[in-house]
Formats: sequence, structure tokens, C-alpha cells
Amino acid sequence: MSTLNHQFRLASRPVGAIKRSDFEFAGEDLREPSDGEVQAKVLYLSLDPAMRGWMNASKESYIPPVGIGEVMRALGLGRVTASHDPNFKLGDHVTGVMGIQEYATVKGQTLTKVDPKLAPLPLYLGTLGMPGLTAYFGVIDEGQVKEGDTVVVSGAAGAVGAVVGQLAKIKGARVIGIAGGAEKCRYLVDDLGFDAAIDYKNDDLHATLKEHAPKGVDLYFDNVGGEILDTVLMHLALHARIVICGAISQYNNDGAFKGPSNYMALLVKRATMKGFLVADYYPRAKEAVTAMTGFIKAGRLKTREEVVQGLETFPETFNRLFSGEKLGKLVLQVAAE
Amino acid sequence: MSTLNHQFRLASRPVGAIKRSDFEFAGEDLREPSDGEVQAKVLYLSLDPAMRGWMNASKESYIPPVGIGEVMRALGLGRVTASHDPNFKLGDHVTGVMGIQEYATVKGQTLTKVDPKLAPLPLYLGTLGMPGLTAYFGVIDEGQVKEGDTVVVSGAAGAVGAVVGQLAKIKGARVIGIAGGAEKCRYLVDDLGFDAAIDYKNDDLHATLKEHAPKGVDLYFDNVGGEILDTVLMHLALHARIVICGAISQYNNDGAFKGPSNYMALLVKRATMKGFLVADYYPRAKEAVTAMTGFIKAGRLKTREEVVQGLETFPETFNRLFSGEKLGKLVLQVAAE
Repeated sequence: MSTLNHQFRLASRPVGAIKRSDFEFAGEDLREPSDGEVQAKVLYLSLDPAMRGWMNASKESYIPPVGIGEVMRALGLGRVTASHDPNFKLGDHVTGVMGIQEYATVKGQTLTKVDPKLAPLPLYLGTLGMPGLTAYFGVIDEGQVKEGDTVVVSGAAGAVGAVVGQLAKIKGARVIGIAGGAEKCRYLVDDLGFDAAIDYKNDDLHATLKEHAPKGVDLYFDNVGGEILDTVLMHLALHARIVICGAISQYNNDGAFKGPSNYMALLVKRATMKGFLVADYYPRAKEAVTAMTGFIKAGRLKTREEVVQGLETFPETFNRLFSGEKLGKLVLQVAAE
Repeated sequence: MSTLNHQFRLASRPVGAIKRSDFEFAGEDLREPSDGEVQAKVLYLSLDPAMRGWMNASKESYIPPVGIGEVMRALGLGRVTASHDPNFKLGDHVTGVMGIQEYATVKGQTLTKVDPKLAPLPLYLGTLGMPGLTAYFGVIDEGQVKEGDTVVVSGAAGAVGAVVGQLAKIKGARVIGIAGGAEKCRYLVDDLGFDAAIDYKNDDLHATLKEHAPKGVDLYFDNVGGEILDTVLMHLALHARIVICGAISQYNNDGAFKGPSNYMALLVKRATMKGFLVADYYPRAKEAVTAMTGFIKAGRLKTREEVVQGLETFPETFNRLFSGEKLGKLVLQVAAE
């Protein structure tokens, strides 16, 4: 008797927010791993804004698009169910690119073992995974955050933003988070210890930035792009740094990507805008994981995952990344631990 | 008998290209310099794209706007006709902010003496003046140009761009200039020694960039912004640097400033975009002037000024900066040397 592996395969290039009809959801026979491969039962899948970009045909990216007919690409965490790689044995917990499916059969060398005793498993997709590493290297190495800086982070209640803000606090900066809605703003200030939070849906971003950053913004960590980036550009301090991590406001945009109209502020303020990819820092992952595990244990870095049950909910759950209806890291639970 | 000092005073904020009616052109009695002031008969005025920005009301700039009723601000070169500053004597040649007028009466400390025997006077407003310093510090310090780089410069036949490209060549880079029209492109390659020139008015910028920079652009020095910036962003090499010097394509824009829609290329290519102001480098001016004087004498740096006669032609002459009808540094001659 063969096992069925249920999967979401990309059926067409989505326009705007993804729809269920953009995918084919079906079960296919689970294949045996070949030499060097490992098969893992997927327990959790990471839902990340960047995945929306992978669904587009554009070749101007850091990673090839997901082909029509291919299983939708996603990071995941699973338990090894078969291994033809001597580095992995049955029952090991592993993370890696697994795809939106029940079982991943991939080359062992693409997987990383994680210890389920050290941290709750979903954390390995959040603060101790790609989003956490993005925050760590983004704010420390790329942003060069330092004591006394006024730091602004957008998408502040998200998987990356929440860690960026807390790490900046740990480094002695004054931190202002931008997020959508009163609940997220309360969470940033009351639970995570941000100095201030701005609700971009209800506050006047210009006025509140002026109030909370009267001397200007030294470091802006941008996850959202669009109007918010444009507004923050008008509040830069001299020699400000802007780290471009993402542009979630634009990923579902059918029309042209909105660039920062106020980019001449870079000239007026002698500022620097730079982009980075966390993948470049993977060789240094251990350094970040060690540091952040320490901060978590010391109670200085708080984590939050929103775990949604059921592979079959993928399209609707994914869209919560863009509708703002989630806090912290969004994780899809595919099977019981 | 008092002397009349003819002046262009800003009468209203221009919309789009400037018009004669945006200014009041009149003569007023020349006033005596007070203590610490120097009076200079203006010989040459520098016409620079940045002046268009000074005519706008925006406070979001590095320098206050010219007030309505004030003499239009401009750099100039003059001969001292009266001095109440012991550092300057009658007949000295000086540069500084003089304004669009026949005589400038300003604090001596804002002026710099120049030697008419060392170089033709208009050169002190071009390659040995603000545009030349902009090019020098922009490409060497900000752009960190190095041997083997593929460098692209826009506005390449202009006062800044032509020097940027030649300095990059001197530093061992491969240089591609973007300019408007076949004559300018011929000038860049045949006269200035650029490796290639792209006529953005007639060539397909995408295709020609691909042809001339097959491995991507390491350093882009941007004077123009707009569509050209957006297109070059699609051709960046990994870890590219973009130096934002200006955005001449947007200065006469009535509507919103066009930002770079393709700025996410910064992320894909781990690239850096930075703005700078030459004023920050004025303390190091001598270093640049000495270096460039040497390059000029050695025949490695060619200069070109377009000198137009007559203060009264200011509005029409100024618009040649934007219509593309000039080569090199645009200078208005106000009086005979």
C-alpha cells in the first residue's frame, strides 16, 4: 500500500492576492528517497511574504520562480521517515525547503537538524529560523545598530520586525514600531518593550514620527515599502541607514511596483539605502541562533508564533500575511508532533 | 553717480521649466560693502541643475529655498571692486555664491580666491569648481571606484558626468556614458575616451546596457533619476554601488517625483544606494583641485565649457540644462574679463 502525499502545486501565476484556484491540491503516491536523499514527514510549514514573489514569472530575483505544475516552495520542519543519507536517521527533526505538502523527499545536504528539547518546534521556523536570522543580521550587520540610535521598523509585529525591534532595544537603541491596528501596537509596547508604536492604519504617520523621532531616524528597517517607506524617508537623520528587507505592501500589487518617490532624501541627508539577503549570512547562522537563544532564555527576546492547523487551509492562511490578521510568525501545522 | 546693479529676482515659484515671467529683471543702486564684506563685479555665473530645486518652496532640502523677491542664488566668479575684508584686495579674482546679478556684495569669508594664470576662469566654475569636486568625491570617495569596475554614468556629457567618467577611466574602470543625442555620444567616446556611450533618446537602453555591461554594473553614478535610473537598476552586478548625485529628469516635473520602482534590485543584488552632498567635502577641496589640475596638464582629463554671453539671457540659457542643448559646463558670461 502506497502512502498519498497531498500537495499544493502552482497551477497558474496569481494576480494580486492568491486564490485557491491558482493551485492544484491533490495527493500523489509518495516516492522512495534515492541515494543521498531524506524523506521527512512535514510537521510545520513556514509562511513567508517572499513566497508571493516566488509565484511570479519574473526572472529578476535571487531565486528562480516556482514553475507551473511544481509543488509550491516553502521552508518547513519535519521528522525523518526514511533516510538514504548517513547524516540523518529516523525520527530526527529537520528544517529546510520542504514545499507545501505532507512529505518532503529532498537531498540530505539541504536539511539542518534541530533539537526539539531546546525550543518549541515552530520557533525553528521563526525567531531561530530564517525570519530571526534576517532580523539579526539585518539590524546588526547591515543596519549597524548602535546605542542611542533612533530605530524605526515597519511590519513591526511580524516575524522579522518584532525581532528587529527587540534586538535594537537590546543594543541600546530607541525603537519605534510601525504596525497596523491597535492590538499590534499595544503588543509592541506592552509585551515587547518598544518605546513607541505607530498604527499606520489610524495614526498620522508623519505627525507621529515627528513626535516620536524629533531628531530624525538613524536606522530604518523596512519590511513594507510603498507609502510608509516614502514617509519615513522624510524623517531621516543625517547619515541615516535604510535597510531594505522587503516590500510586503507591493507584493500583491498588480500594477507597477511603487518606488520611493522621496529617495532624494538620501542626498539631502547623506543617507544610505541597502538591500540584503539573509542567505548570504547562513554560514554564520550558529552565531545568531546562539545569541538569540541566550536572549530568549534571559527573557529579553520574546517570541510569538501563530500556528494554523491544516495543510488544506494554505491559500487562505497565506493571505493573512498580507491582510494583517496575524501577530508574529505565521506557521501552518501539517501534522501532529 | 551711483552704479546700477542689474539682477534677476525670483518673482514667483516656477511650475515646470522656468519662464522669464517667474523673475523680475531690474537694476538697483549698488550698495557699499559694509565691514567684512567684499564687492565683486561678476564675470561668470555657474548655471547648475540644483538651482531649479532652490526655486521651489520645499523645506525638505539641504539649503533653504530662494525667497520670493530675493536675487536668484548662483555660484559665480568675479573680480573684486571694493573690499572691507583684509584678505581680499582690488582686482583679486574670487568665486562664491554671487547670485544672478552684475555685482555681488557678500561677506569675504564666503569667497575663495582663484589664480587666473593657472587656468581659464570658467574652469573654476566647472572642473575645478563645484561640479568637478562633485565628480571627484562622488566617484572616488562615495563610489569607491576601483580598477576593473564597470561604471555607468548618466548625464555623462554634463559638467559632472564628463569628469566622473574620465576619473573612473583614470582609476582603471571600464566606463559607459549615458547621454542624449549622437553628438554627445560621439564626444564621450572620441574626445573623452569613454569605452562606450548610449544615446538614451535613440538607443534601447536595456539592450545596449546588456551589450556593454554583460557582467552587470558595479558602480552607477546617477545624475538624472527617472526611467534611466530604473533601467540601470535592472542591470546591477552583485554588491553594486549606486551614487545618487541628482535627478535632473525630475526637477521640472510638476507632478510627483518619480522614485525608482525597481529599487528591490538593491535586495536581489545586495546593492547600496547612497546620496551625498559635495559641500561635505569642501574642506578637502584642495586635494581634488590639485589632483585634477595634474590630470588636466597631463592631458588625461579634458574639460569643456559652454559660455553664453549676457546676464539678460539667464532664463533661456538656464533651460538649456534641461533641454539637453549643451555640452559640458554651462556658464553665463556677465562681463568681459
